[in-house]
Amino acid sequence: MRTLLVIGIGSGNPEHITIQAIKALNRTEVFFAFDKGAATSDLLNLRREICRTYITDRDYRFVEVTDPERDRTPDAYRDAVVDWHEERAIAYEAVIDAELGPDGVGALLVWGDPALYDSTIRIVQQILERGRVSFDYEVIPGISSVQVLAAQHRTVLNGIGEPIHITTGRQLPEAVAAGERNIVVMLDGKLACRDLPDQDFDIRWGANLGTPAEVLLSGPLPVMIDQIVATRAELKARTGWIMDTYLLRRPAGWVRPGRPQP
Amino acid sequence: MRTLLVIGIGSGNPEHITIQAIKALNRTEVFFAFDKGAATSDLLNLRREICRTYITDRDYRFVEVTDPERDRTPDAYRDAVVDWHEERAIAYEAVIDAELGPDGVGALLVWGDPALYDSTIRIVQQILERGRVSFDYEVIPGISSVQVLAAQHRTVLNGIGEPIHITTGRQLPEAVAAGERNIVVMLDGKLACRDLPDQDFDIRWGANLGTPAEVLLSGPLPVMIDQIVATRAELKARTGWIMDTYLLRRPAGWVRPGRPQP
Repeated sequence: MRTLLVIGIGSGNPEHITIQAIKALNRTEVFFAFDKGAATSDLLNLRREICRTYITDRDYRFVEVTDPERDRTPDAYRDAVVDWHEERAIAYEAVIDAELGPDGVGALLVWGDPALYDSTIRIVQQILERGRVSFDYEVIPGISSVQVLAAQHRTVLNGIGEPIHITTGRQLPEAVAAGERNIVVMLDGKLACRDLPDQDFDIRWGANLGTPAEVLLSGPLPVMIDQIVATRAELKARTGWIMDTYLLRRPAGWVRPGRPQP
Repeated sequence: MRTLLVIGIGSGNPEHITIQAIKALNRTEVFFAFDKGAATSDLLNLRREICRTYITDRDYRFVEVTDPERDRTPDAYRDAVVDWHEERAIAYEAVIDAELGPDGVGALLVWGDPALYDSTIRIVQQILERGRVSFDYEVIPGISSVQVLAAQHRTVLNGIGEPIHITTGRQLPEAVAAGERNIVVMLDGKLACRDLPDQDFDIRWGANLGTPAEVLLSGPLPVMIDQIVATRAELKARTGWIMDTYLLRRPAGWVRPGRPQP
């Protein structure tokens, strides 16, 4: 039986990798990687470096797959993502079949954690559902950028006994309207927190977390937002890409408008 | 300057530790640990085993601190937690002062991730605010039980583009009322999902995640709940304690009552 390993490799700092992930790297014959063009070639190189650093037990090879184009029209968001997953599944299916022997072990390396806003597990399940190739698969968790954000800001994500809400820039306004006090925002290319009518938050922002180009900014949202916008643009101009995430937290003593004091 | 390291060491499986955490362990002279009595002596032993396994560079010692009693009356929940943190801060302050030299490096080992429902960072900040001892501190993220839950169930925590809501058993009913679709429940000693009036969820439950005594159960909540209750009781009877967490997810195609179809 073929085996496919979905391995979380952390968020940019090669030292975020776990012993479990290192053992999984050392079981792998073929690493499958999507080539997303220039913008992510830095990330691809970082993956190769992680393999060079931690694989001691065996020979391995990288197989690059060209990433299908994705329809980024906002109206069609969910459908476009679903179609794109299907195309990725078809592309992977072909290379798994061509490159992996009957007892071969392949791996997909995932930045951050495979359980958090990552499509790899879904694609693997889709390949299996299509029924053209069969394999067993395992998932190895990895340190996510959310955890690095909190660690570098030396903060807890939740207030005592309070929920944590992890969402996208797209859905941030709904979370604020619902009265969430601790909101982690991911996949937010437009800094949706700029446009919130209610700006009464503290922000802890981090870009390129875990890498040598890491930047951290924190303070009251209305005070920090211009600096974050400017820093974001500068970082992006320098390397062509930026990965950022942030925590919005209501300041101590904040009471939801229209609600009785606790 | 003294340094205190807050080190996430993963959720039971010693292989969940990161290279960054191993390097931090090897910088440490004194490990401070709270002794919570028989119920957690297994966990204390597991910490010692992690140190034995991964520390190669230096001598180190363990200093055990007796954990102050906590008022578990539900009415006083938040205040009780705050007082208890204060008492812990005072207890730690004394041992840091007594056990750590002027340039000493101490560490607090945290199960899971220090950013997720853990009080260690808060206690460290409280010690500094009290102003009686001074030190620098660093936080090293660790794999949390939530991530292990998702990895072992080979699932993503979020639906495509959907938020993830992490909450406590105590606040689960509010999350359900708010229409959350992907809810991770922690710190739930009573399986609050049993008492939800609306049981239309799939559950992915895990106990003692990452340990040899790990148990996973998943399926529709109404189908699985009795089996989870029974398994929970059996595991607890066997060793005197249990650590569990679960993901509730609305089934595919679920529409929030009273809302128009999307």
